[in-house]
Amino acid sequence: MAEFCLQEFENFLHSQIQTRQPPRGVTASYWEEILSYPFESGGKRFRAQLAFSVGEAFDLSVEERYRIGAAIEVLHTASLIHDDLPEIDNDDFRRGRLSTHKKYGEGLAVVCADELFFIAPRILISLNSLSLIDAFLQTAEDLARGEAFDILYEKGKAQLQIQEIIEMYEWKTARLIQFSMTAPAIYKMSDKSQLDVLQQASKKIGIAFQVYDDIKDETGHFNELGKTPRKDSQAGKITVLTSMSIQQARQFADGLWKEAIEILNRTFSERISASSRFLNRIWEQIQSS
Amino acid sequence: MAEFCLQEFENFLHSQIQTRQPPRGVTASYWEEILSYPFESGGKRFRAQLAFSVGEAFDLSVEERYRIGAAIEVLHTASLIHDDLPEIDNDDFRRGRLSTHKKYGEGLAVVCADELFFIAPRILISLNSLSLIDAFLQTAEDLARGEAFDILYEKGKAQLQIQEIIEMYEWKTARLIQFSMTAPAIYKMSDKSQLDVLQQASKKIGIAFQVYDDIKDETGHFNELGKTPRKDSQAGKITVLTSMSIQQARQFADGLWKEAIEILNRTFSERISASSRFLNRIWEQIQSS
Repeated sequence: MAEFCLQEFENFLHSQIQTRQPPRGVTASYWEEILSYPFESGGKRFRAQLAFSVGEAFDLSVEERYRIGAAIEVLHTASLIHDDLPEIDNDDFRRGRLSTHKKYGEGLAVVCADELFFIAPRILISLNSLSLIDAFLQTAEDLARGEAFDILYEKGKAQLQIQEIIEMYEWKTARLIQFSMTAPAIYKMSDKSQLDVLQQASKKIGIAFQVYDDIKDETGHFNELGKTPRKDSQAGKITVLTSMSIQQARQFADGLWKEAIEILNRTFSERISASSRFLNRIWEQIQSS
Repeated sequence: MAEFCLQEFENFLHSQIQTRQPPRGVTASYWEEILSYPFESGGKRFRAQLAFSVGEAFDLSVEERYRIGAAIEVLHTASLIHDDLPEIDNDDFRRGRLSTHKKYGEGLAVVCADELFFIAPRILISLNSLSLIDAFLQTAEDLARGEAFDILYEKGKAQLQIQEIIEMYEWKTARLIQFSMTAPAIYKMSDKSQLDVLQQASKKIGIAFQVYDDIKDETGHFNELGKTPRKDSQAGKITVLTSMSIQQARQFADGLWKEAIEILNRTFSERISASSRFLNRIWEQIQSS
Protein backbone atom coordinates (compact mmCIF):
# COMPACT_ATOMS: atom_id res chain seq x y z
CA MET A 1 0.00 0.00 0.00
CA ALA A 2 1.40 3.34 -1.10
CA GLU A 3 1.65 6.02 1.57
CA PHE A 4 0.76 9.65 1.12
CA CYS A 5 4.15 11.32 1.22
CA LEU A 6 3.70 14.98 2.09
CA GLN A 7 7.07 16.07 0.73
CA GLU A 8 6.51 14.27 -2.55
CA PHE A 9 3.02 15.79 -2.80
CA GLU A 10 4.36 19.29 -2.09
CA ASN A 11 6.89 18.90 -4.90
CA PHE A 12 4.16 17.82 -7.28
CA LEU A 13 1.91 20.67 -6.16
CA HIS A 14 4.61 23.28 -6.71
CA SER A 15 5.43 21.88 -10.14
CA GLN A 16 1.80 22.50 -11.12
CA ILE A 17 1.83 26.13 -9.99
CA GLN A 18 5.02 27.14 -11.69
CA THR A 19 4.12 28.13 -15.21
CA ARG A 20 5.14 26.19 -18.18
CA GLN A 21 7.08 29.04 -19.84
CA PRO A 22 10.11 30.34 -17.98
CA PRO A 23 9.28 33.84 -16.69
CA ARG A 24 10.63 36.73 -18.71
CA GLY A 25 11.68 39.88 -16.92
CA VAL A 26 11.37 41.22 -13.39
CA THR A 27 7.58 41.59 -13.42
CA ALA A 28 6.99 37.99 -14.47
CA SER A 29 9.38 36.64 -11.82
CA TYR A 30 7.67 38.74 -9.18
CA TRP A 31 4.26 37.44 -10.27
CA GLU A 32 5.51 33.83 -10.04
CA GLU A 33 6.60 34.61 -6.49
CA ILE A 34 3.10 35.87 -5.62
CA LEU A 35 1.41 32.80 -7.14
CA SER A 36 3.67 30.50 -5.10
CA TYR A 37 3.45 32.43 -1.83
CA PRO A 38 0.19 30.94 -0.49
CA PHE A 39 1.53 27.40 -1.01
CA GLU A 40 4.82 27.88 0.78
CA SER A 41 3.39 27.66 4.27
CA GLY A 42 2.42 24.06 3.58
CA GLY A 43 -0.45 22.62 5.57
CA LYS A 44 -1.70 19.13 6.30
CA ARG A 45 -3.24 18.86 2.83
CA PHE A 46 -6.10 17.05 4.48
CA ARG A 47 -8.26 17.04 1.32
CA ALA A 48 -5.45 15.65 -0.83
CA GLN A 49 -4.91 12.94 1.80
CA LEU A 50 -8.58 11.99 1.60
CA ALA A 51 -8.45 11.75 -2.20
CA PHE A 52 -5.27 9.71 -1.92
CA SER A 53 -6.84 7.34 0.54
CA VAL A 54 -9.99 6.71 -1.49
CA GLY A 55 -7.90 6.62 -4.68
CA GLU A 56 -6.09 3.60 -3.25
CA ALA A 57 -9.38 1.73 -2.94
CA PHE A 58 -10.20 2.53 -6.58
CA ASP A 59 -6.80 1.48 -7.91
CA LEU A 60 -5.63 4.87 -9.06
CA SER A 61 -1.89 5.31 -9.56
CA VAL A 62 -0.01 7.52 -7.11
CA GLU A 63 0.45 10.13 -9.84
CA GLU A 64 -3.29 10.16 -10.61
CA ARG A 65 -4.05 10.58 -6.92
CA TYR A 66 -1.52 13.38 -6.49
CA ARG A 67 -2.97 15.09 -9.54
CA ILE A 68 -6.50 15.07 -8.13
CA GLY A 69 -5.16 16.16 -4.74
CA ALA A 70 -3.19 19.03 -6.29
CA ALA A 71 -6.24 20.38 -8.18
CA ILE A 72 -8.20 20.30 -4.91
CA GLU A 73 -5.51 22.01 -2.86
CA VAL A 74 -5.02 24.74 -5.48
CA LEU A 75 -8.76 25.47 -5.52
CA HIS A 76 -8.92 25.40 -1.73
CA THR A 77 -5.91 27.69 -1.32
CA ALA A 78 -7.26 30.16 -3.89
CA SER A 79 -10.63 30.32 -2.16
CA LEU A 80 -8.88 31.10 1.16
CA ILE A 81 -7.12 34.06 -0.46
CA HIS A 82 -10.50 35.61 -1.28
CA ASP A 83 -11.95 34.61 2.13
CA ASP A 84 -9.16 36.45 3.92
CA LEU A 85 -9.81 39.76 2.08
CA PRO A 86 -10.92 42.70 4.24
CA GLU A 87 -14.35 42.74 2.56
CA ILE A 88 -14.96 39.10 3.48
CA ASP A 89 -13.36 37.57 6.61
CA ASN A 90 -10.62 40.19 7.05
CA ASP A 91 -7.89 37.82 8.20
CA ASP A 92 -4.38 39.20 8.36
CA PHE A 93 -2.83 35.80 8.94
CA ARG A 94 -3.11 32.40 7.33
CA ARG A 95 -1.11 29.34 8.28
CA GLY A 96 1.06 31.47 10.55
CA ARG A 97 2.11 33.95 7.88
CA LEU A 98 0.70 37.18 6.50
CA SER A 99 -2.25 36.49 4.23
CA THR A 100 -1.67 37.20 0.54
CA HIS A 101 -3.41 40.59 0.52
CA LYS A 102 -1.44 41.78 3.57
CA LYS A 103 1.79 40.77 1.92
CA TYR A 104 1.16 41.90 -1.69
CA GLY A 105 -1.88 44.17 -1.60
CA GLU A 106 -5.55 43.51 -2.17
CA GLY A 107 -5.72 43.97 -5.94
CA LEU A 108 -2.97 41.44 -6.59
CA ALA A 109 -4.51 39.03 -4.05
CA VAL A 110 -7.82 39.13 -5.96
CA VAL A 111 -6.23 38.27 -9.30
CA CYS A 112 -3.73 35.81 -7.78
CA ALA A 113 -6.68 33.68 -6.63
CA ASP A 114 -8.37 34.21 -10.00
CA GLU A 115 -5.39 32.77 -11.85
CA LEU A 116 -5.17 29.85 -9.39
CA PHE A 117 -8.89 29.16 -9.92
CA PHE A 118 -8.11 28.43 -13.57
CA ILE A 119 -4.86 26.59 -12.94
CA ALA A 120 -6.71 24.15 -10.65
CA PRO A 121 -8.98 22.46 -13.24
CA ARG A 122 -6.16 22.48 -15.79
CA ILE A 123 -4.21 20.13 -13.51
CA LEU A 124 -6.92 17.54 -14.25
CA ILE A 125 -6.90 17.92 -18.04
CA SER A 126 -4.28 15.24 -18.65
CA LEU A 127 -6.49 12.68 -16.85
CA ASN A 128 -8.70 12.98 -19.90
CA SER A 129 -12.05 12.79 -18.13
CA LEU A 130 -14.71 15.37 -18.94
CA SER A 131 -16.96 14.13 -16.15
CA LEU A 132 -14.16 14.63 -13.62
CA ILE A 133 -13.59 18.20 -14.84
CA ASP A 134 -17.31 18.90 -14.74
CA ALA A 135 -17.64 17.56 -11.19
CA PHE A 136 -14.67 19.68 -10.17
CA LEU A 137 -16.11 22.86 -11.70
CA GLN A 138 -19.50 22.16 -10.12
CA THR A 139 -17.77 21.75 -6.76
CA ALA A 140 -15.96 25.04 -7.21
CA GLU A 141 -19.23 26.76 -8.12
CA ASP A 142 -20.86 25.38 -4.96
CA LEU A 143 -17.90 26.55 -2.89
CA ALA A 144 -18.34 30.12 -4.13
CA ARG A 145 -22.06 29.93 -3.47
CA GLY A 146 -21.46 28.68 0.08
CA GLU A 147 -19.17 31.62 0.69
CA ALA A 148 -21.86 33.97 -0.65
CA PHE A 149 -24.44 32.50 1.73
CA ASP A 150 -22.00 32.85 4.59
CA ILE A 151 -21.66 36.57 3.80
CA LEU A 152 -25.40 37.02 3.31
CA TYR A 153 -26.24 35.29 6.59
CA GLU A 154 -23.72 37.39 8.46
CA LYS A 155 -25.00 40.60 6.88
CA GLY A 156 -28.60 39.73 7.59
CA LYS A 157 -27.77 38.64 11.15
CA ALA A 158 -30.74 36.43 10.56
CA GLN A 159 -32.19 34.13 13.17
CA LEU A 160 -31.22 30.95 11.43
CA GLN A 161 -32.34 27.41 11.98
CA ILE A 162 -29.49 24.99 12.65
CA GLN A 163 -30.55 23.22 9.43
CA GLU A 164 -29.84 26.35 7.37
CA ILE A 165 -26.40 26.71 8.91
CA ILE A 166 -25.64 23.07 8.13
CA GLU A 167 -26.80 23.58 4.54
CA MET A 168 -24.41 26.49 4.17
CA TYR A 169 -21.62 24.25 5.54
CA GLU A 170 -22.54 21.66 2.94
CA TRP A 171 -21.71 24.17 0.21
CA LYS A 172 -18.89 26.05 1.82
CA THR A 173 -16.96 23.09 3.18
CA ALA A 174 -18.51 19.70 2.53
CA ARG A 175 -18.68 19.91 -1.27
CA LEU A 176 -14.90 20.04 -1.70
CA ILE A 177 -14.46 17.18 0.76
CA GLN A 178 -17.13 15.28 -1.17
CA PHE A 179 -15.19 15.86 -4.37
CA SER A 180 -12.00 14.67 -2.65
CA MET A 181 -13.65 11.37 -1.79
CA THR A 182 -15.76 10.85 -4.93
CA ALA A 183 -13.26 11.98 -7.56
CA PRO A 184 -11.51 8.56 -7.79
CA ALA A 185 -14.90 6.87 -8.33
CA ILE A 186 -15.98 9.44 -10.94
CA TYR A 187 -12.66 9.07 -12.69
CA LYS A 188 -12.93 5.28 -12.74
CA MET A 189 -16.60 5.47 -13.80
CA SER A 190 -17.66 3.35 -10.86
CA ASP A 191 -21.35 2.47 -10.58
CA LYS A 192 -23.88 4.90 -9.20
CA SER A 193 -24.58 3.01 -5.98
CA GLN A 194 -20.94 3.18 -4.91
CA LEU A 195 -20.81 6.84 -5.81
CA ASP A 196 -23.94 7.52 -3.74
CA VAL A 197 -22.37 5.89 -0.69
CA LEU A 198 -19.23 7.95 -1.07
CA GLN A 199 -21.32 11.13 -1.49
CA GLN A 200 -23.29 10.39 1.65
CA ALA A 201 -20.29 9.50 3.81
CA SER A 202 -18.15 12.39 2.59
CA LYS A 203 -20.94 14.89 3.22
CA LYS A 204 -20.99 13.82 6.86
CA ILE A 205 -17.22 14.05 7.07
CA GLY A 206 -17.31 17.50 5.49
CA ILE A 207 -19.85 18.87 7.95
CA ALA A 208 -17.98 17.29 10.88
CA PHE A 209 -14.80 18.92 9.64
CA GLN A 210 -16.40 22.38 9.54
CA VAL A 211 -17.84 21.92 13.03
CA TYR A 212 -14.38 21.06 14.38
CA ASP A 213 -13.06 24.12 12.56
CA ASP A 214 -15.61 26.26 14.43
CA ILE A 215 -14.67 24.64 17.74
CA LYS A 216 -10.98 25.21 17.15
CA ASP A 217 -11.58 28.82 16.17
CA GLU A 218 -13.24 29.27 19.55
CA THR A 219 -10.81 27.30 21.72
CA GLY A 220 -7.47 27.39 19.88
CA HIS A 221 -4.42 29.64 20.12
CA PHE A 222 -2.68 31.52 17.32
CA ASN A 223 0.25 29.07 17.26
CA GLU A 224 -2.00 26.09 16.65
CA LEU A 225 -4.37 27.80 14.20
CA GLY A 226 -1.88 29.90 12.27
CA LYS A 227 -4.51 32.64 12.26
CA THR A 228 -6.23 34.91 14.76
CA PRO A 229 -8.51 32.85 17.05
CA ARG A 230 -12.04 33.77 18.12
CA LYS A 231 -12.49 35.97 15.08
CA ASP A 232 -15.80 34.27 14.23
CA SER A 233 -17.54 35.03 17.50
CA GLN A 234 -16.07 38.53 17.67
CA ALA A 235 -17.31 39.32 14.17
CA GLY A 236 -20.75 37.99 15.11
CA LYS A 237 -20.33 35.30 12.49
CA ILE A 238 -23.01 32.66 12.40
CA THR A 239 -21.68 29.17 13.16
CA VAL A 240 -23.16 26.10 14.79
CA LEU A 241 -21.79 27.48 18.08
CA THR A 242 -24.41 30.22 17.83
CA SER A 243 -26.95 27.59 18.77
CA MET A 244 -25.08 24.78 20.53
CA SER A 245 -22.39 24.46 23.18
CA ILE A 246 -18.85 23.33 22.37
CA GLN A 247 -19.58 20.03 24.07
CA GLN A 248 -22.73 19.49 21.99
CA ALA A 249 -20.91 20.48 18.80
CA ARG A 250 -18.13 17.98 19.53
CA GLN A 251 -20.66 15.19 20.07
CA PHE A 252 -22.47 16.18 16.88
CA ALA A 253 -19.28 16.08 14.80
CA ASP A 254 -18.03 12.83 16.35
CA GLY A 255 -21.43 11.27 15.62
CA LEU A 256 -21.27 12.31 11.96
CA TRP A 257 -17.77 10.88 11.63
CA LYS A 258 -18.83 7.56 13.14
CA GLU A 259 -21.83 7.33 10.81
CA ALA A 260 -19.61 8.08 7.82
CA ILE A 261 -17.13 5.35 8.68
CA GLU A 262 -19.95 2.85 9.23
CA ILE A 263 -21.47 3.64 5.84
CA LEU A 264 -18.09 3.25 4.18
CA ASN A 265 -17.29 -0.02 5.93
CA ARG A 266 -20.67 -1.48 5.03
CA THR A 267 -20.16 -0.96 1.31
CA PHE A 268 -16.43 -1.11 0.84
CA SER A 269 -15.62 -3.58 3.62
CA GLU A 270 -12.57 -5.07 1.97
CA ARG A 271 -11.47 -2.36 -0.37
CA ILE A 272 -11.56 0.44 2.12
CA SER A 273 -10.23 -1.43 5.14
CA ALA A 274 -6.66 -0.42 4.42
CA SER A 275 -7.81 3.15 3.78
CA SER A 276 -9.82 3.03 6.98
CA ARG A 277 -6.74 3.15 9.17
CA PHE A 278 -5.67 6.07 7.04
CA LEU A 279 -9.01 7.82 7.53
CA ASN A 280 -8.73 7.38 11.27
CA ARG A 281 -5.33 9.02 11.23
CA ILE A 282 -6.83 11.93 9.31
CA TRP A 283 -9.61 12.22 11.86
CA GLU A 284 -7.11 12.41 14.69
CA GLN A 285 -5.45 15.29 12.85
CA ILE A 286 -8.79 17.08 12.50
CA GLN A 287 -9.60 16.76 16.18
CA SER A 288 -6.22 17.62 17.57
CA SER A 289 -4.84 20.62 15.73
CA MET B 1 -26.28 32.47 -43.61
CA ALA B 2 -27.48 32.62 -40.01
CA GLU B 3 -27.34 36.04 -38.40
CA PHE B 4 -26.20 36.74 -34.85
CA CYS B 5 -29.46 37.65 -33.12
CA LEU B 6 -28.67 39.64 -30.00
CA GLN B 7 -32.01 39.01 -28.32
CA GLU B 8 -31.79 35.27 -28.96
CA PHE B 9 -28.23 35.26 -27.64
CA GLU B 10 -29.23 37.17 -24.51
CA ASN B 11 -31.95 34.61 -23.81
CA PHE B 12 -29.45 31.80 -24.19
CA LEU B 13 -26.92 33.60 -21.99
CA HIS B 14 -29.44 34.15 -19.19
CA SER B 15 -30.57 30.54 -19.32
CA GLN B 16 -26.95 29.54 -18.62
CA ILE B 17 -26.63 31.79 -15.58
CA GLN B 18 -29.80 30.76 -13.88
CA THR B 19 -29.00 27.72 -11.83
CA ARG B 20 -30.29 24.32 -12.61
CA GLN B 21 -32.11 23.86 -9.28
CA PRO B 22 -34.91 26.28 -8.50
CA PRO B 23 -33.75 28.56 -5.66
CA ARG B 24 -35.04 27.72 -2.20
CA GLY B 25 -35.73 30.53 0.23
CA VAL B 26 -35.12 34.25 0.31
CA THR B 27 -31.32 34.08 0.45
CA ALA B 28 -31.09 31.85 -2.62
CA SER B 29 -33.40 34.10 -4.64
CA TYR B 30 -31.38 37.15 -3.65
CA TRP B 31 -28.18 35.42 -4.69
CA GLU B 32 -29.69 34.55 -8.10
CA GLU B 33 -30.50 38.24 -8.49
CA ILE B 34 -26.88 39.19 -7.78
CA LEU B 35 -25.52 36.62 -10.25
CA SER B 36 -27.84 37.95 -12.98
CA TYR B 37 -27.29 41.64 -12.28
CA PRO B 38 -24.08 42.17 -14.29
CA PHE B 39 -25.72 40.63 -17.37
CA GLU B 40 -28.84 42.73 -17.35
CA SER B 41 -27.25 45.82 -18.79
CA GLY B 42 -26.59 43.91 -22.00
CA GLY B 43 -23.76 45.11 -24.20
CA LYS B 44 -22.72 44.54 -27.79
CA ARG B 45 -21.44 41.05 -26.96
CA PHE B 46 -18.63 41.80 -29.37
CA ARG B 47 -16.66 38.65 -28.46
CA ALA B 48 -19.68 36.39 -28.91
CA GLN B 49 -20.29 38.00 -32.28
CA LEU B 50 -16.71 37.23 -33.31
CA ALA B 51 -17.09 33.58 -32.27
CA PHE B 52 -20.40 33.41 -34.12
CA SER B 53 -18.88 34.84 -37.26
CA VAL B 54 -15.90 32.47 -37.35
CA GLY B 55 -18.17 29.61 -36.25
CA GLU B 56 -20.14 30.09 -39.47
CA ALA B 57 -16.99 29.51 -41.51
CA PHE B 58 -16.31 26.29 -39.59
CA ASP B 59 -19.86 24.95 -39.96
CA LEU B 60 -20.82 25.09 -36.30
CA SER B 61 -24.53 25.05 -35.53
CA VAL B 62 -26.09 28.23 -34.16
CA GLU B 63 -26.51 26.56 -30.77
CA GLU B 64 -22.82 25.55 -30.68
CA ARG B 65 -21.83 29.10 -31.56
CA TYR B 66 -24.08 30.62 -28.91
CA ARG B 67 -22.69 28.20 -26.37
CA ILE B 68 -19.10 29.23 -27.07
CA GLY B 69 -20.16 32.89 -27.09
CA ALA B 70 -21.98 32.53 -23.77
CA ALA B 71 -18.95 30.96 -22.04
CA ILE B 72 -16.82 33.84 -23.31
CA GLU B 73 -19.24 36.57 -22.22
CA VAL B 74 -19.66 35.03 -18.75
CA LEU B 75 -15.89 34.94 -18.27
CA HIS B 76 -15.53 38.47 -19.61
CA THR B 77 -18.32 39.84 -17.40
CA ALA B 78 -16.92 38.13 -14.30
CA SER B 79 -13.46 39.54 -14.94
CA LEU B 80 -14.95 43.05 -15.20
CA ILE B 81 -16.57 42.64 -11.77
CA HIS B 82 -13.12 42.11 -10.24
CA ASP B 83 -11.58 44.88 -12.39
CA ASP B 84 -14.10 47.38 -11.09
CA LEU B 85 -13.30 46.70 -7.41
CA PRO B 86 -11.84 49.60 -5.40
CA GLU B 87 -8.53 47.78 -5.01
CA ILE B 88 -8.13 47.38 -8.77
CA ASP B 89 -9.67 49.95 -11.17
CA ASN B 90 -12.15 51.44 -8.71
CA ASP B 91 -15.00 51.98 -11.17
CA ASP B 92 -18.38 52.86 -9.72
CA PHE B 93 -20.15 52.39 -13.05
CA ARG B 94 -20.24 49.72 -15.72
CA ARG B 95 -22.41 49.80 -18.82
CA GLY B 96 -24.27 52.79 -17.45
CA ARG B 97 -25.28 51.20 -14.14
CA LEU B 98 -23.70 50.83 -10.73
CA SER B 99 -20.96 48.24 -10.78
CA THR B 100 -21.69 45.05 -8.85
CA HIS B 101 -19.69 46.01 -5.75
CA LYS B 102 -21.38 49.43 -5.54
CA LYS B 103 -24.76 47.78 -5.77
CA TYR B 104 -24.26 44.73 -3.52
CA GLY B 105 -21.04 45.32 -1.58
CA GLU B 106 -17.47 44.27 -2.22
CA GLY B 107 -17.49 40.86 -0.53
CA LEU B 108 -20.44 39.62 -2.55
CA ALA B 109 -18.97 41.10 -5.74
CA VAL B 110 -15.77 39.09 -5.21
CA VAL B 111 -17.61 35.78 -4.82
CA CYS B 112 -20.20 36.59 -7.50
CA ALA B 113 -17.39 36.75 -10.05
CA ASP B 114 -15.84 33.62 -8.53
CA GLU B 115 -19.02 31.63 -9.10
CA LEU B 116 -19.34 33.01 -12.65
CA PHE B 117 -15.72 31.99 -13.33
CA PHE B 118 -16.76 28.37 -12.76
CA ILE B 119 -20.11 28.63 -14.53
CA ALA B 120 -18.32 29.83 -17.68
CA PRO B 121 -16.34 26.67 -18.55
CA ARG B 122 -19.28 24.48 -17.51
CA ILE B 123 -21.28 26.00 -20.39
CA LEU B 124 -18.83 24.26 -22.73
CA ILE B 125 -19.04 20.81 -21.09
CA SER B 126 -21.89 19.56 -23.28
CA LEU B 127 -19.79 20.25 -26.40
CA ASN B 128 -17.75 17.30 -25.23
CA SER B 129 -14.33 18.64 -26.18
CA LEU B 130 -11.53 18.52 -23.63
CA SER B 131 -9.23 20.54 -25.86
CA LEU B 132 -11.83 23.32 -26.08
CA ILE B 133 -12.19 23.39 -22.27
CA ASP B 134 -8.42 23.41 -21.86
CA ALA B 135 -8.01 26.29 -24.33
CA PHE B 136 -10.73 28.20 -22.49
CA LEU B 137 -9.13 27.67 -19.08
CA GLN B 138 -5.73 28.66 -20.46
CA THR B 139 -7.29 31.83 -21.87
CA ALA B 140 -8.87 32.63 -18.51
CA GLU B 141 -5.53 32.09 -16.79
CA ASP B 142 -3.83 34.46 -19.23
CA LEU B 143 -6.57 37.04 -18.64
CA ALA B 144 -5.92 37.01 -14.89
CA ARG B 145 -2.20 37.26 -15.50
CA GLY B 146 -2.69 40.24 -17.84
CA GLU B 147 -4.69 41.96 -15.14
CA ALA B 148 -1.91 41.26 -12.64
CA PHE B 149 0.66 42.80 -14.97
CA ASP B 150 -1.56 45.83 -15.44
CA ILE B 151 -1.65 46.32 -11.65
CA LEU B 152 2.08 45.70 -11.27
CA TYR B 153 2.97 48.16 -14.04
CA GLU B 154 0.74 50.81 -12.54
CA LYS B 155 2.18 50.28 -9.08
CA GLY B 156 5.74 50.38 -10.32
CA LYS B 157 5.00 53.42 -12.49
CA ALA B 158 7.79 51.93 -14.53
CA GLN B 159 9.19 53.53 -17.66
CA LEU B 160 7.86 50.90 -20.02
CA GLN B 161 8.74 50.18 -23.60
CA ILE B 162 5.73 50.23 -25.93
CA GLN B 163 6.47 46.56 -26.60
CA GLU B 164 5.91 45.69 -22.92
CA ILE B 165 2.59 47.54 -22.89
CA ILE B 166 1.49 45.66 -26.01
CA GLU B 167 2.50 42.37 -24.43
CA MET B 168 0.32 43.17 -21.41
CA TYR B 169 -2.56 43.93 -23.84
CA GLU B 170 -1.99 40.55 -25.45
CA TRP B 171 -2.77 38.88 -22.14
CA LYS B 172 -5.35 41.23 -20.74
CA THR B 173 -7.42 41.69 -23.88
CA ALA B 174 -6.18 39.84 -26.93
CA ARG B 175 -6.21 36.31 -25.47
CA LEU B 176 -9.98 36.25 -25.00
CA ILE B 177 -10.52 37.65 -28.48
CA GLN B 178 -8.11 35.02 -29.78
CA PHE B 179 -10.17 32.35 -28.06
CA SER B 180 -13.35 33.82 -29.58
CA MET B 181 -11.91 33.42 -33.07
CA THR B 182 -10.04 30.14 -32.63
CA ALA B 183 -12.58 28.21 -30.55
CA PRO B 184 -14.59 27.02 -33.58
CA ALA B 185 -11.41 25.69 -35.20
CA ILE B 186 -10.26 24.01 -31.97
CA TYR B 187 -13.70 22.47 -31.54
CA LYS B 188 -13.72 21.16 -35.12
CA MET B 189 -10.13 19.95 -34.77
CA SER B 190 -9.07 21.93 -37.81
CA ASP B 191 -5.46 21.62 -38.93
CA LYS B 192 -2.66 23.51 -37.23
CA SER B 193 -1.93 25.85 -40.14
CA GLN B 194 -5.49 27.21 -40.13
CA LEU B 195 -5.37 27.57 -36.36
CA ASP B 196 -2.09 29.49 -36.58
CA VAL B 197 -3.60 31.94 -39.06
CA LEU B 198 -6.59 32.53 -36.81
CA GLN B 199 -4.28 33.00 -33.80
CA GLN B 200 -2.19 35.55 -35.66
CA ALA B 201 -5.13 37.53 -37.05
CA SER B 202 -7.09 37.52 -33.81
CA LYS B 203 -4.09 38.70 -31.81
CA LYS B 204 -3.91 41.77 -34.04
CA ILE B 205 -7.64 42.35 -33.70
CA GLY B 206 -7.38 42.00 -29.92
CA ILE B 207 -4.60 44.56 -29.59
CA ALA B 208 -6.41 46.95 -31.95
CA PHE B 209 -9.53 46.57 -29.83
CA GLN B 210 -7.66 47.50 -26.63
CA VAL B 211 -6.05 50.51 -28.30
CA TYR B 212 -9.49 51.78 -29.39
CA ASP B 213 -10.67 51.19 -25.84
CA ASP B 214 -7.88 53.44 -24.57
CA ILE B 215 -8.74 56.10 -27.15
CA LYS B 216 -12.40 56.03 -26.20
CA ASP B 217 -11.57 56.25 -22.50
CA GLU B 218 -9.69 59.46 -23.30
CA THR B 219 -12.15 61.05 -25.75
CA GLY B 220 -15.58 59.58 -24.85
CA HIS B 221 -18.40 60.80 -22.65
CA PHE B 222 -20.15 58.94 -19.86
CA ASN B 223 -23.26 58.30 -21.97
CA GLU B 224 -21.30 56.57 -24.71
CA LEU B 225 -18.95 54.64 -22.43
CA GLY B 226 -21.37 53.72 -19.65
CA LYS B 227 -18.53 54.39 -17.20
CA THR B 228 -16.51 57.36 -16.00
CA PRO B 229 -14.27 58.64 -18.83
CA ARG B 230 -10.62 59.68 -18.52
CA LYS B 231 -10.15 57.50 -15.46
CA ASP B 232 -7.05 55.88 -16.98
CA SER B 233 -5.08 59.07 -17.44
CA GLN B 234 -6.24 60.51 -14.12
CA ALA B 235 -5.17 57.37 -12.29
CA GLY B 236 -1.79 57.54 -14.03
CA LYS B 237 -2.57 54.21 -15.68
CA ILE B 238 -0.11 53.05 -18.27
CA THR B 239 -1.66 52.71 -21.74
CA VAL B 240 -0.34 53.11 -25.27
CA LEU B 241 -1.41 56.77 -24.98
CA THR B 242 1.39 57.24 -22.44
CA SER B 243 3.76 57.03 -25.37
CA MET B 244 1.79 57.92 -28.50
CA SER B 245 -0.74 60.54 -29.57
CA ILE B 246 -4.38 59.69 -30.17
CA GLN B 247 -3.82 60.14 -33.90
CA GLN B 248 -0.85 57.74 -33.85
CA ALA B 249 -2.78 55.22 -31.77
CA ARG B 250 -5.70 55.30 -34.21
CA GLN B 251 -3.36 54.69 -37.15
CA PHE B 252 -1.66 51.86 -35.25
CA ALA B 253 -4.99 50.13 -34.48
CA ASP B 254 -6.37 50.62 -38.00
CA GLY B 255 -3.17 49.15 -39.40
CA LEU B 256 -3.45 46.07 -37.19
CA TRP B 257 -7.06 45.54 -38.22
CA LYS B 258 -6.17 45.81 -41.92
CA GLU B 259 -3.35 43.29 -41.52
CA ALA B 260 -5.68 40.90 -39.69
CA ILE B 261 -8.31 41.01 -42.42
CA GLU B 262 -5.64 40.49 -45.11
CA ILE B 263 -4.28 37.43 -43.31
CA LEU B 264 -7.79 36.00 -42.93
CA ASN B 265 -8.72 36.64 -46.55
CA ARG B 266 -5.52 35.06 -47.82
CA THR B 267 -6.19 31.76 -46.06
CA PHE B 268 -9.95 31.57 -45.85
CA SER B 269 -10.80 33.44 -49.06
CA GLU B 270 -14.03 31.63 -49.74
CA ARG B 271 -15.06 30.40 -46.35
CA ILE B 272 -14.61 33.65 -44.54
CA SER B 273 -15.93 36.01 -47.23
CA ALA B 274 -19.44 35.99 -45.80
CA SER B 275 -18.01 36.45 -42.32
CA SER B 276 -15.85 39.22 -43.62
CA ARG B 277 -18.80 41.58 -44.06
CA PHE B 278 -19.75 40.63 -40.56
CA LEU B 279 -16.27 41.40 -39.25
CA ASN B 280 -16.35 44.80 -40.90
CA ARG B 281 -19.61 45.59 -39.18
CA ILE B 282 -18.01 44.63 -35.87
CA TRP B 283 -15.05 46.88 -36.61
CA GLU B 284 -17.37 49.83 -37.25
CA GLN B 285 -18.90 49.18 -33.83
CA ILE B 286 -15.48 49.17 -32.19
CA GLN B 287 -14.46 52.45 -33.78
CA SER B 288 -17.68 54.31 -33.23
CA SER B 289 -18.95 53.66 -29.74
